[in-house]
Amino acid sequence: MKNITITAYDWVPDFAQGHVRDLRVRWALREAGLPYDVTLIEQGRQTEPGHLARQPFAQVPTLDADEARLFESGAIVWRIAERSPTLMPEDAADRDSALSWCFSALNSVEPFVAQLTFLSIFAQDKEAAGRLVPQITALVERKLKRLSDALGDKDWLVADRFTAADVLMVTVLRDVPEVTLAAYPALRAYRDRGTARPAFAAALAEQMAPFAEHAPRYEKAS
Amino acid sequence: MKNITITAYDWVPDFAQGHVRDLRVRWALREAGLPYDVTLIEQGRQTEPGHLARQPFAQVPTLDADEARLFESGAIVWRIAERSPTLMPEDAADRDSALSWCFSALNSVEPFVAQLTFLSIFAQDKEAAGRLVPQITALVERKLKRLSDALGDKDWLVADRFTAADVLMVTVLRDVPEVTLAAYPALRAYRDRGTARPAFAAALAEQMAPFAEHAPRYEKAS
Repeated sequence: MKNITITAYDWVPDFAQGHVRDLRVRWALREAGLPYDVTLIEQGRQTEPGHLARQPFAQVPTLDADEARLFESGAIVWRIAERSPTLMPEDAADRDSALSWCFSALNSVEPFVAQLTFLSIFAQDKEAAGRLVPQITALVERKLKRLSDALGDKDWLVADRFTAADVLMVTVLRDVPEVTLAAYPALRAYRDRGTARPAFAAALAEQMAPFAEHAPRYEKAS
Repeated sequence: MKNITITAYDWVPDFAQGHVRDLRVRWALREAGLPYDVTLIEQGRQTEPGHLARQPFAQVPTLDADEARLFESGAIVWRIAERSPTLMPEDAADRDSALSWCFSALNSVEPFVAQLTFLSIFAQDKEAAGRLVPQITALVERKLKRLSDALGDKDWLVADRFTAADVLMVTVLRDVPEVTLAAYPALRAYRDRGTARPAFAAALAEQMAPFAEHAPRYEKAS
């Protein structure tokens, strides 16, 4: 992949800082050793036609390259992995497993974690939301139990090596409340193994840097 | 792909009948013209070690074939598409678009639709759930508006032809309450175009058939 440009936001509110999904793409690109440029999108301008043509849901990230044009963090990370031995196992069965785990992270685990985030942060009726938290927490815990069983004493999900599936699953686990994840020490250790990688740390620092720089303008506006 | 076997349930409660995710895989396999066997799993046995080894979250579907072993409907449909010109465009840019839309259906649209289903069907505190329905409905509507704008007057999401992305997005739209979808006539027509395909009708009938057959045993047990 040549001449890669991704999109990210120039600023987001505190609760989202370090959790916007371009983090996954930055992390994957750094693991793959692929250089890239970043186009920062101002808040409010993600709904302009130029960006909607790239990302129909007015979100980030997107990726443009000489031979690729994608949206959705899962799709982008998978395509990067297909071009990177650092993120993709060689064996065909292991590749199937990596693909399964990529979708699993985003369709079987993340939606429950996101529902908990919604109830805690975004729900307008806080009292009603609070009453649903225990049931959703129990659903998240059931997923974490299964995930922990599947991981067992392995370091990574697939073929005992780091893959694209770990990029996605580790970023999903970062959104689980610490008190909930603490009951699954193997998963907490797994998340910490992921976030201890230099490529993750660099990706996170890079996502955060523009937020500090642009904060004064947004804080003045609010 | 040779000697394909997928897993599905022998019975599910009424609200889930016709909506279990093996439907997507059956549909894709029929579009691709690939024959397959089905292993029906009795309710309660999805948590047995044999199935957990195939599907770590004790769900269906899974797919086993001579040269493939996958779980997660998104992963399975994508792998089938990679082997089927019926489901996958030829052009590389269109393939990127199909991959983006596959993840988009399952990570940017379905989680909101599923949250609405949760509030309507699964929430134990019905009163609290009811109070959150308007806000989640508004979120779903925002997604539908964007999706409708992206579809425009096209018949299908990618390259003006049916692809794997439509298998996933149409099945997601089938879970949107009719009253909500009705406000987006282009999307309703899109869903109906998908479900009018003979491969969809065959897949649906095939998922439903065992439910009727096995209902007496489960109804006696309850």
